[in-house]
Amino acid sequence: MMTEQINVQLAATQREKPDQTNLGFGRIFTDHMFMMDYTEGKGWHDPRIVPYQPITLAPSAMIFHYGQTVFEGMKAYLTEDKRVFLFRPEKNMERLNRSNNRLCIPQIDGEFAIEALKKLIEVDQEWIPTAEGTSLYIRPFIIATEPFLGVAPAKNYTFMIIMSPVGLYYKEGIAPVKILVENDFARTVKGGTGEAKTAGNYASSLKAQEIASEKEYSQVLWLDGVEKKYIEEVGSMNVFFKIDGEVVTPALNGSILHGVTRDSVIQLLKHWNIPVSERRLSMEEVAEAHRDGKLEEAFGTGTAAVISPIGEFFWEEEKMVLNNGKTGELSKKLYDTITGIQYGTIEDPFNWVIEVPIASSK
Amino acid sequence: MMTEQINVQLAATQREKPDQTNLGFGRIFTDHMFMMDYTEGKGWHDPRIVPYQPITLAPSAMIFHYGQTVFEGMKAYLTEDKRVFLFRPEKNMERLNRSNNRLCIPQIDGEFAIEALKKLIEVDQEWIPTAEGTSLYIRPFIIATEPFLGVAPAKNYTFMIIMSPVGLYYKEGIAPVKILVENDFARTVKGGTGEAKTAGNYASSLKAQEIASEKEYSQVLWLDGVEKKYIEEVGSMNVFFKIDGEVVTPALNGSILHGVTRDSVIQLLKHWNIPVSERRLSMEEVAEAHRDGKLEEAFGTGTAAVISPIGEFFWEEEKMVLNNGKTGELSKKLYDTITGIQYGTIEDPFNWVIEVPIASSK
Ligand SMILES: Cc1ncc(COP(=O)(O)O)c(C=O)c1O
Ligand SMILES: Cc1ncc(COP(=O)(O)O)c(C=O)c1O
Repeated sequence: MMTEQINVQLAATQREKPDQTNLGFGRIFTDHMFMMDYTEGKGWHDPRIVPYQPITLAPSAMIFHYGQTVFEGMKAYLTEDKRVFLFRPEKNMERLNRSNNRLCIPQIDGEFAIEALKKLIEVDQEWIPTAEGTSLYIRPFIIATEPFLGVAPAKNYTFMIIMSPVGLYYKEGIAPVKILVENDFARTVKGGTGEAKTAGNYASSLKAQEIASEKEYSQVLWLDGVEKKYIEEVGSMNVFFKIDGEVVTPALNGSILHGVTRDSVIQLLKHWNIPVSERRLSMEEVAEAHRDGKLEEAFGTGTAAVISPIGEFFWEEEKMVLNNGKTGELSKKLYDTITGIQYGTIEDPFNWVIEVPIASSK
Repeated sequence: MMTEQINVQLAATQREKPDQTNLGFGRIFTDHMFMMDYTEGKGWHDPRIVPYQPITLAPSAMIFHYGQTVFEGMKAYLTEDKRVFLFRPEKNMERLNRSNNRLCIPQIDGEFAIEALKKLIEVDQEWIPTAEGTSLYIRPFIIATEPFLGVAPAKNYTFMIIMSPVGLYYKEGIAPVKILVENDFARTVKGGTGEAKTAGNYASSLKAQEIASEKEYSQVLWLDGVEKKYIEEVGSMNVFFKIDGEVVTPALNGSILHGVTRDSVIQLLKHWNIPVSERRLSMEEVAEAHRDGKLEEAFGTGTAAVISPIGEFFWEEEKMVLNNGKTGELSKKLYDTITGIQYGTIEDPFNWVIEVPIASSK
């Protein structure tokens, strides 16, 4: 593991903490952030915790032109007895490195990054919100900083971690959303960057999302870019369907993100002896199951919303209402179990949570 | 047209001009840059020319996370009699706005942007290099600046123009390159962002490019993302083939950039009564033409290199050497004609060039 000391420079003053009943998502940031630079020939260096502040880059910095960047999304949770938990952070760091590989960005030391994150959380521990359903959203990301207008992997990068106290992703808590199946636009394709968590995938999704919103659908269901038949993801979530007692989710085919929540759901289902399969799944199959009354539930999975039950699909001319537009039983059970493990209110049979050691402070 | 006055703040000192025999590409920038901001509800505002300097953004600025950005690439040329030419700049601004549309970025006033560019060039006129084959590369770009970790179009943007004196793209001048046909990775796909000039397309191309470089190929030929059969582009260029007397280039199908050089080449060929067609073209057809001795020439087209003759393709197991690895006659003629028009040494029958009025200065 990287052994360089993390330099800590504390903010002179602490900003006021936000109103916990109205946190929203991703607009408020804590007092500090973690940074570390990469220089070709030297590797990653100068890990440091500094006051949260603007960053300064050359207008020619490659991030602005060629999008060489990756990111992660994870959360810290405060338990009732004031312990701080992370949920499977090693999975995020593994995925960050897989994304790095696809984007030609140098690997980071995942263990070291988790140590850095723990330290950052300790420094900003008072920013972890305590109200029900709130958490501290964590955004590690890497950007290419070399000032060069050439299409090639950069020689310089900065790795950063910023943190934002967040409320429930959907204000209403767990409530079914309406999904539009997208037939025209593609988010990514086989051989593309779909498996990586990189900016371009999200940029390319905006247009379809905008159109869906105008039609009052909250998210888009993405079909595969090749045949426009097979289900990939829903918005920025993986997606599951309960069909005739069996839970099905699209197999990881190269253009789907390896969701941490997805993996956790699969493990839980197996633990509960509920049949679950990862396989190719067409929208036609789902629609047929719905026509036959066999589509029992559907839900998206992701760090932000955990489990997002789906109340309705619209595909071509067909509107499919699921479970009378109500949250399904399994969706609810998964939500309660995963959030229960995350907040330490129920047993964690998988050793998913990691406690962040917090020196009892001020 | 937007009528707001462009505020000009000159640099206190002028940096030393670079050695013109060793300019490279995209590493040196002029003394000034153009900036203009967008705020939701207010539109584009505060157009200004300021000293070239780093920009400062929140670490949560959306450009770093969700890649909402577009750019352009164009050049200014100094003629022998010291006039400054732009080549079809209105095409670049049209394309920028098409890219904006795909990326959910507000439209800019293209005419105003050209006026701003002319003013910027005037301010930095001494930066236009004079050595043969050199030019001033111009990079307009727009980035989403809103500090928000949410996947949605931003409410704030900055439009910038930076400029870099550049040498010949290939040091050797016009010389044939070796191309690897890419079978695994995809740059983009139908319904994706391929038609837009946006960062993510370039990020996703890096990996294939890296592998090609290791094998000593200078660029990748991209096949369509759906069937992996049809030719799309070569590296960051459009591509043309001369087959049995006819010039063929892939039709604009939604995933190919509308290259300005591509369009100019097509117009020139028509002007010369050389048969040219824009259509779907498979790699198999090209390989067959080669096997039959009918593949006479191939070349890439783009602002940076103008015409880049192709000396060799490698596809699956097949190596195709063209024209004995030498620059073809048509490639050379197109290169000479387009650069001749750009530098004002030959007649411009299409009114492609626009003169930048330069108040005779110091
Ligand atoms: C495209 C995409 N798919 C799926 C997910 C779900 O992944 P995870 O469960 O790790 O949050 C996310 C969000 O993180 C995502 O951005
Ligand atoms: C992907 C891509 N294709 C084609 C081109 C050529 O376009 P143009 O001739 O307008 O420079 C470029 C470069 O500008 C490009 O980036």
